[in-house]
Amino acid sequence: MSALTRGNLIIGQSGGATAVINASLVGAVEAALATNRIGAIYGMQHGIEGLLKEEILDLRQQPASLWPRIKQAPSAALGACRYKLQDSDPERVIEILRRYDIRYMLYIGGNDSADTSHRLAAAARQSDYELCIISIPKTIDNDLPFTDHCPGYGSAARFIAQATIDSTMNTVSIPWHYPVKIIETMGRDAGWLTAASALGKRDEQDPPHVILIPEQPFIQDRFLAQVEQIHRRIGHVIIAAAETIRDEQGRSLGASGQVGVDAFQHPLLSGTAQYLVDLVKTRLGLRARFDKPGDLQRMSSTNISSVDQEEAYLVGQAGVQAVLRGESDKMVTLVRHDEPRYHCTTGLVDLEQIANVQRLMPDQYLDESKTMVTTAFQDYALPLLGAPLIHHAHLEK
Amino acid sequence: MSALTRGNLIIGQSGGATAVINASLVGAVEAALATNRIGAIYGMQHGIEGLLKEEILDLRQQPASLWPRIKQAPSAALGACRYKLQDSDPERVIEILRRYDIRYMLYIGGNDSADTSHRLAAAARQSDYELCIISIPKTIDNDLPFTDHCPGYGSAARFIAQATIDSTMNTVSIPWHYPVKIIETMGRDAGWLTAASALGKRDEQDPPHVILIPEQPFIQDRFLAQVEQIHRRIGHVIIAAAETIRDEQGRSLGASGQVGVDAFQHPLLSGTAQYLVDLVKTRLGLRARFDKPGDLQRMSSTNISSVDQEEAYLVGQAGVQAVLRGESDKMVTLVRHDEPRYHCTTGLVDLEQIANVQRLMPDQYLDESKTMVTTAFQDYALPLLGAPLIHHAHLEK
Repeated sequence: MSALTRGNLIIGQSGGATAVINASLVGAVEAALATNRIGAIYGMQHGIEGLLKEEILDLRQQPASLWPRIKQAPSAALGACRYKLQDSDPERVIEILRRYDIRYMLYIGGNDSADTSHRLAAAARQSDYELCIISIPKTIDNDLPFTDHCPGYGSAARFIAQATIDSTMNTVSIPWHYPVKIIETMGRDAGWLTAASALGKRDEQDPPHVILIPEQPFIQDRFLAQVEQIHRRIGHVIIAAAETIRDEQGRSLGASGQVGVDAFQHPLLSGTAQYLVDLVKTRLGLRARFDKPGDLQRMSSTNISSVDQEEAYLVGQAGVQAVLRGESDKMVTLVRHDEPRYHCTTGLVDLEQIANVQRLMPDQYLDESKTMVTTAFQDYALPLLGAPLIHHAHLEK
Repeated sequence: MSALTRGNLIIGQSGGATAVINASLVGAVEAALATNRIGAIYGMQHGIEGLLKEEILDLRQQPASLWPRIKQAPSAALGACRYKLQDSDPERVIEILRRYDIRYMLYIGGNDSADTSHRLAAAARQSDYELCIISIPKTIDNDLPFTDHCPGYGSAARFIAQATIDSTMNTVSIPWHYPVKIIETMGRDAGWLTAASALGKRDEQDPPHVILIPEQPFIQDRFLAQVEQIHRRIGHVIIAAAETIRDEQGRSLGASGQVGVDAFQHPLLSGTAQYLVDLVKTRLGLRARFDKPGDLQRMSSTNISSVDQEEAYLVGQAGVQAVLRGESDKMVTLVRHDEPRYHCTTGLVDLEQIANVQRLMPDQYLDESKTMVTTAFQDYALPLLGAPLIHHAHLEK
């Protein structure tokens, strides 16, 4: 596709929000404001679902001083959606874009949003409507392929890593009171966030002692033996568990709390942590309780990774630069460089290769037990967390 | 009791930890290091339970440079306990104190620890053993009487207030996805921490929209009508609920998850949030989910209130000053001054008046509905949070 000389731009945000999804929005807006090749700058309210209802904001009307403050705010300032395109939707979207003479579109989201962008790009080609559409990666799940990691993951990982350090402090102050603690993290299919609980771990004593991720089957007897052994050795057991853990038959733990499916037919679940608490109590006679930070791990404004925030801003900017070069039907990626020190540049990958593909935790990031990460994982993920984690002082005994 | 000219000091920490309980320890240690009237400075490992086993640390052996770092660390650096004195214990404790020639004792804890201190003071009198024993207040529950508030509450309240602001950001980005969110806070009998969820609330739209505290009976039909009405009016409903909520017959919600009683015969419960999620789903057909930050609200190192930390340090110092004046069988209190601006000095109150008494939320801090706080409560609690809460920017619509 040839690069247009000038056009209107629309930006949308989609899916579960992150602490830095607005940094990508602001990166895009500020890049758009800085060029004379972009006319109107529109925002979809609640993503593609709002666009279909023509719920559109003129972002040039926002005071310029607002953008640095929006950059700091967690969640989607435009509103998000979890909407799967119906068959007639792409054509309707192109019709609306045409009406507003929108030639550039950026859609900030995860796998499902990449699929949406890909289908819209196809519809534009089919309608001979000149449109450059670029997907901007965003997900705390870190499960998009072809990018070193996903903006949003670093901050959520930082939250979980620090929470694991902090909340364990209470357990160890009276280890016999509640010797077993479960920390339930988000993660439906991929264990990246659960694994992040181990980013503050420096030795065998440090938490967590067991991680349970969706990629690995839960083998109950092995788990109970592990918990018992760790309890005997160090007096307490900290377990980080993904919200979805499956047994060897593929059944989810705690699925009795199953509450249906979402618009993408993903099962909605509750209850992994409660299941494990009851299991440990019943089978081992050990008192257990759980922390379930829930949306806080997405949204905590006191745990934002500065690296994550800057990278989110960078991919937003790169999206504008890409559409101005005439790129379309692609997703911005983060390309990692470890020399002279960790930093990222951006790249592009065809959406065809991305949409609905999930990147799971690779084997080299798990040790033999499959219930603990390797130092290779720590080397991969620690730079994404920004400032060093807070490790607490202890009295000398 | 006459003021001793010189004696050895022992300090202990007890009960559920807080983010600033070590600031009180360090306040006491640094005050003790600064006077020549204190000989040895001992620390009980795991409170009175450790003392009974003579698990004692010589705190003068710790490097001086460690104390400022311990001051920043959440949880009890000495280890804590939840131990109810057996009949023969007080005599045994006095025997151990006598052996170490300990004449000053500071015990940092909540109601139960105040009871322990009171019983030890009586045992010392009965044994004609000259001992000055002072209780240092500590509890995230803020339920100790006679003190304006309790060290530990400000940081936990800050965590809950900021978490309510932050995690709501995800709900409002797609309000129809999960229109109802429950945030489960700690609080077995007193609603102070649940009420803190409303410290960032500036208007009717701001979260939370309903608070459920242990002091107020849960009236199911009224609650459901309230949720339905708020949902109709603003499209989403944020509910902060204490871990223990009782119906009009005094039965705990979610008591099916009841897991027994602790050493003080307090019932251990789980499941309030899950109960409410299921209730809202079944009766109103609204999708709901919950965040349960658990121990994080006690321990979060990224949400410590600077005011709380300094006050915790102050009461630790005041404890040393009190025993040096010959005071005993008392608890240090915080005395509030609002002129020229908020600050606290310390006072003392007889332990006889404190032990096992709980201060519940008074009526003037609840509005007519009994499910929301008044501005009088905000005026009371906001200064305890230290720096202003982070309110996020929104686009102009």
